[in-house]
Amino acid sequence: MKRLIILAMSLLWGGMYAQKQAVDYINPFIGTSNFGATHPGAIAPRGMLSISPFNVAFDTKGVEAPLEKDSRWLSNPYVNENKFFTGFTHVNMSGVGCPELGVILAMPTTGALEVEHLKYGSPYKDEVAKAGYYSTFLTKYGIKAEATARQRAGISRYHFPKGEGNLLINLGLGLTNEQGAMLKFVSPTEVEGMRMVGSFCYNSPELAYPVYFVAKVNKPAKHYGVWQHPATYEGVEAKWMTYNGKTRFKEGFMREVVGDSLGAYFRYNFDKEEVVELRVGVSYVSIANARENLEKEIGNKTFDEVYAATRTAWNEQLKAQVTGGTEDEKTVFYTALYHALIHPNLLNDHNGDYPESTTNKIGKNTKRFTVFSLWDTYRNYHQLMSLLYPEDQLGMVRTMLDIYKESGWLPKWELNSTETFTMVGDPASIVIADTYLRGLTDFDINTAYEAMLKGANTLKNNPIRPGVEEYWRLGYLSVDGGVRGPVSTTQEYNAADFAIAQIAKKLGKKADAAKFGKQSLSYHKLFDKQTKLLRPKHANGSWYAPFDPNSGANFEENVGYIEGNAWQYVFMLTHDMKGTIKLMGGEKAFEQQLDHIFNSKQYDMANEPDIAYPYLYNYLKGREWKTQQRVHSLINEYFQNKPAGLPGNDDTGVMSAWVVYGMMGLYPITPAEPIYTLTAPRFEKIVLQLDKKYYPNGQLIIESNASPENIYIKKITIDGKEHKSYFITHDELKKAHTIRFELSNIKK
Amino acid sequence: MKRLIILAMSLLWGGMYAQKQAVDYINPFIGTSNFGATHPGAIAPRGMLSISPFNVAFDTKGVEAPLEKDSRWLSNPYVNENKFFTGFTHVNMSGVGCPELGVILAMPTTGALEVEHLKYGSPYKDEVAKAGYYSTFLTKYGIKAEATARQRAGISRYHFPKGEGNLLINLGLGLTNEQGAMLKFVSPTEVEGMRMVGSFCYNSPELAYPVYFVAKVNKPAKHYGVWQHPATYEGVEAKWMTYNGKTRFKEGFMREVVGDSLGAYFRYNFDKEEVVELRVGVSYVSIANARENLEKEIGNKTFDEVYAATRTAWNEQLKAQVTGGTEDEKTVFYTALYHALIHPNLLNDHNGDYPESTTNKIGKNTKRFTVFSLWDTYRNYHQLMSLLYPEDQLGMVRTMLDIYKESGWLPKWELNSTETFTMVGDPASIVIADTYLRGLTDFDINTAYEAMLKGANTLKNNPIRPGVEEYWRLGYLSVDGGVRGPVSTTQEYNAADFAIAQIAKKLGKKADAAKFGKQSLSYHKLFDKQTKLLRPKHANGSWYAPFDPNSGANFEENVGYIEGNAWQYVFMLTHDMKGTIKLMGGEKAFEQQLDHIFNSKQYDMANEPDIAYPYLYNYLKGREWKTQQRVHSLINEYFQNKPAGLPGNDDTGVMSAWVVYGMMGLYPITPAEPIYTLTAPRFEKIVLQLDKKYYPNGQLIIESNASPENIYIKKITIDGKEHKSYFITHDELKKAHTIRFELSNIKK
Repeated sequence: MKRLIILAMSLLWGGMYAQKQAVDYINPFIGTSNFGATHPGAIAPRGMLSISPFNVAFDTKGVEAPLEKDSRWLSNPYVNENKFFTGFTHVNMSGVGCPELGVILAMPTTGALEVEHLKYGSPYKDEVAKAGYYSTFLTKYGIKAEATARQRAGISRYHFPKGEGNLLINLGLGLTNEQGAMLKFVSPTEVEGMRMVGSFCYNSPELAYPVYFVAKVNKPAKHYGVWQHPATYEGVEAKWMTYNGKTRFKEGFMREVVGDSLGAYFRYNFDKEEVVELRVGVSYVSIANARENLEKEIGNKTFDEVYAATRTAWNEQLKAQVTGGTEDEKTVFYTALYHALIHPNLLNDHNGDYPESTTNKIGKNTKRFTVFSLWDTYRNYHQLMSLLYPEDQLGMVRTMLDIYKESGWLPKWELNSTETFTMVGDPASIVIADTYLRGLTDFDINTAYEAMLKGANTLKNNPIRPGVEEYWRLGYLSVDGGVRGPVSTTQEYNAADFAIAQIAKKLGKKADAAKFGKQSLSYHKLFDKQTKLLRPKHANGSWYAPFDPNSGANFEENVGYIEGNAWQYVFMLTHDMKGTIKLMGGEKAFEQQLDHIFNSKQYDMANEPDIAYPYLYNYLKGREWKTQQRVHSLINEYFQNKPAGLPGNDDTGVMSAWVVYGMMGLYPITPAEPIYTLTAPRFEKIVLQLDKKYYPNGQLIIESNASPENIYIKKITIDGKEHKSYFITHDELKKAHTIRFELSNIKK
Repeated sequence: MKRLIILAMSLLWGGMYAQKQAVDYINPFIGTSNFGATHPGAIAPRGMLSISPFNVAFDTKGVEAPLEKDSRWLSNPYVNENKFFTGFTHVNMSGVGCPELGVILAMPTTGALEVEHLKYGSPYKDEVAKAGYYSTFLTKYGIKAEATARQRAGISRYHFPKGEGNLLINLGLGLTNEQGAMLKFVSPTEVEGMRMVGSFCYNSPELAYPVYFVAKVNKPAKHYGVWQHPATYEGVEAKWMTYNGKTRFKEGFMREVVGDSLGAYFRYNFDKEEVVELRVGVSYVSIANARENLEKEIGNKTFDEVYAATRTAWNEQLKAQVTGGTEDEKTVFYTALYHALIHPNLLNDHNGDYPESTTNKIGKNTKRFTVFSLWDTYRNYHQLMSLLYPEDQLGMVRTMLDIYKESGWLPKWELNSTETFTMVGDPASIVIADTYLRGLTDFDINTAYEAMLKGANTLKNNPIRPGVEEYWRLGYLSVDGGVRGPVSTTQEYNAADFAIAQIAKKLGKKADAAKFGKQSLSYHKLFDKQTKLLRPKHANGSWYAPFDPNSGANFEENVGYIEGNAWQYVFMLTHDMKGTIKLMGGEKAFEQQLDHIFNSKQYDMANEPDIAYPYLYNYLKGREWKTQQRVHSLINEYFQNKPAGLPGNDDTGVMSAWVVYGMMGLYPITPAEPIYTLTAPRFEKIVLQLDKKYYPNGQLIIESNASPENIYIKKITIDGKEHKSYFITHDELKKAHTIRFELSNIKK
């Protein structure tokens, strides 16, 4: 059987294996340890559906520091070091910091029907993960389980041994903390249903909503039905209820079953080895749409056809192609690009339907995106999208504006058309401004500007900028105002105000440009000359005391900062590096403080506020080699071809975007300023395939003589002409055909 | 406002109030105490929906012997002595012995939104209950709540005071022990959903199924939404879930919400007193059908129009009209007839759809009945239906045959197309035979006969007659065979075999007639000459010891009998009264034993096995006055115009049928034998309106000189000719125009 498949695949793909393609370097295991929170499951670019192994529910008795979903804050459906498989989940998030989705589990078993995951779960071996494909071998059952996916539908297939075999669809278990499901068999081979999800990051539980699905098996089961875990009855009647609290099996039941914890089963008795395929379509609109998504995306296509189509789609999406470097470096690079193309993902169904935000209406759009982790992504992610995937980036901006039109506010941390109000600041304004300023202007800038001003200027009941009245009045958020992380939130508002100022300037709105430009520097009021750090302050102007600059690292709660400490925030506002240099007391002091952060291990590669720090030496003439050195060593240390090969949460592609830039030799140093700063690339040749509509040259080549020793820039030439700056504007980049880095092993 | 309604009602009904009509005697409170298990809610004849006040959920702390649903075995949605209203339920059972249905609660409140029933419940006063109408005044809120109903849809209306008002639809609470619900707002005035019900009498929980509904308010609410009681999360994450275990309010949410415990709310702020109407349609097939039921049965009709139509329907259904007797006697009589017309009720939707039994298919029928409590109803209920409602009775028989075709077996205790396997015996065969032998032959007798034989002769895996192999082999079920109540179950099988013998004779199947006729007397083997009682026996023929004839009364578990003791079963098999007389040792001994049962208070008026005992004196020449005396005094003692006016569970109309017969002066003494035995009627004139298709005379008049003293029969004449027997065949009855009872105060 296996031989036939391999043969079929070879015939199908023909010469594809003749040479290793970009897609073949993708290693979905990267980020599946060390809290990277990626998963190795099958997914298509920006897919709404993914089929991930789920291995975070197990018996923790006697396990030290278990990576189990309910034993700690754990946001992954899969952790590489875990070893207990309890099913394939069909909707998942990648690289986020809170547990959510991870539902609609499909699990094959053999023998008697067992539906308790602690009992039916299996160890496994021989995992394989590629772009659009995952497989593993369940040792308890002798079953090979495989998965592949299109954007809204996927197939899993199971190689059952002879004898009793079961396929479970468990709606009781999930990464989400929500409960509630519906299941209805519509035929002996098809079940439809829904599962409640939501309350991302323990916020907005009242917005929990259903994900709908349709699941079909390709072989009629001997028995099928729904199981239900009922609540345990506590009344005196319990003594007559011999079934009290026990799982019940509704064999052959074909009306809806609703409740907190349900599952469906297909039970077989094979007289020889058999392969069963499970096709699942999902939707956030309706069961009918889930069914249409499945029909339109998969229909009668075979598993191999689906995988081939998704593999091709991934290969085509890898718009930066590299030559040179080690195999591991290529793997890190292409996998990072892959991880950057998972979120934001599509929310609209094949027919364009999507649930609008707050309106209860169904909207129509072919590119309605979701999963906007904007506090993270405004810093570098969208800049990469604007460069390599401008149509997607425009779709994201248009989605943000639609969310504004629907809900009255721009998004902050949007998930499936709900605003989860996770993290702080006003990041959407920055993303929109940045996109426009990079020449992607095909959206309604007037509405966008209106939305930005509403977020900035609404003094009361402002869900985007709480405390903004004090912010405008004092120039900072005080520790007395009740706003979380008043120092860092002040900085976030400053960053947004800088963006608004830039767009105001562009639109010729001089007064606004001046007002927001001035306000974007208001963080100066929090600068403490003693410590050369930003420091929490009272509304009356006195410093908050005692002040411990170290407090707040490693996600510790902290009076001044969100997810970070004073060291990790002080250099955040790159739009004002000249100002920061001045505050610090000149370039030398600036460099010393920056060095101190790295040398004292206060630099946190795993979180966003200090993500641009290694590039800041480029602001110090003659010290640019430190950027090259730091970036080089950070990549070596934190970005590797192994499950722990991300520094921490991928943050919906932000860490991945960071390493993509770092390996290309450029970084979009200031959000909402169309400029990149430069460092030494990692490859001999990087070809960026650009969309001619926005980048008339159609491609950009970055060349270098990179090697493990050649990590320092000697000379930069653009189309043969020396480029003396360590910065390059987006317009210069657009015009360039080839940027050549002459590297050496000697600091310049 | 009220005045206008009264005026409108007077205009509408015109002369209806000129004289008190039969319908006006119906008192739905009868049976709502003393475990009668009826409810006073609004219902149409054989309605699938009823709107009952629900008052069996309250705080029992400090309440001695509370009649609270979870504190004991309680099968009522309403108990007259309770005083805490927590809503109107929209599907209910009447007079049954197990808690089931009692769901889809509608509750009006004022002030802040409160959805916990222990907090929102209200005392009440001024209850009014009529056929098709119920109202009460909720003293906590100053709200008058009213309800009226058609067969599959109903209206409740609420007279709100000025200020904040709420209308709740609580799917978390219910009489059933099942959980699980779905709710979806489809517009600000309409919500659709489903609620799991089932596991009647703690049986077959795996067959639990949804009841679907659509609910519409006539005034758009200011706020509306769904509440959800989530499960309490026990993981370490609970500390971040500030909402853990707390009820959440999904304001304005318009997708499905699914889970164990949900509700919907409509929130108003009235600037003056306002009336809000809630229209609810239900279905056991689908939400679409529930909506169609609502549209077709109610649509835009007003509350008063709906009530008028249902009142008229009830009046027309009272096919026995009485003259004379006291007001209380008329009330007892008409209310009993009313209670006999609640179950079996319709299961099919307005469009004919109904869920088939076990097939998962949707069937079509205009008279698909459900709620067959056949262990009870085979004894007298269906005989009354055959006489007064022959088309309904035929519909019930056809339904039973359809259930056989669908599931492979005749029903035993059917509820909403599920077989609950409550009680014992093979009662459907008896009902079908009885119907056929009374001349209602318009059904497929061949299939019926096949079904009867299958139930009787299938020796293994026979869900209808467990132990039947031993029964045929030994003539009785032994205490060793594992069948519950082996003595009484033997008797039940004998009763069924008598019925099969009768129908076999009718169909000319002589061998079957002989075989089943002989077997129908096999209970003789359990007759113990010492005690003159039936006694449990071992398979080896020895008596089970020790034997306590008194054990088993009051539903006590007992080795030989189901719901009864030896006294209450010994005379059950009326098809063999001659045999019983012989076993007892002659008429004198028979009379002594029967007298002993009554005198020692072993006679149980509240349960079925001994329900015919008072009529058995008619088998003893010269002792018929004892029947007249016993029936008279039992009616006086147990059947009264008050909430406790039924002896116990109405048993889906069986107790009511008993008193209807008793007051008419005749009783269908032997199931499957078309014969009645006679006693003194209670009224001067009883006019039975008969269906000319089956009863060519079209009516039968029963006349008498009944009075509180004239309780003994002096002479019976039929159409002027003296009738010397205390029995009358169904054929004689059919031919008769007038039966006249000459009564006296002297025993004959």
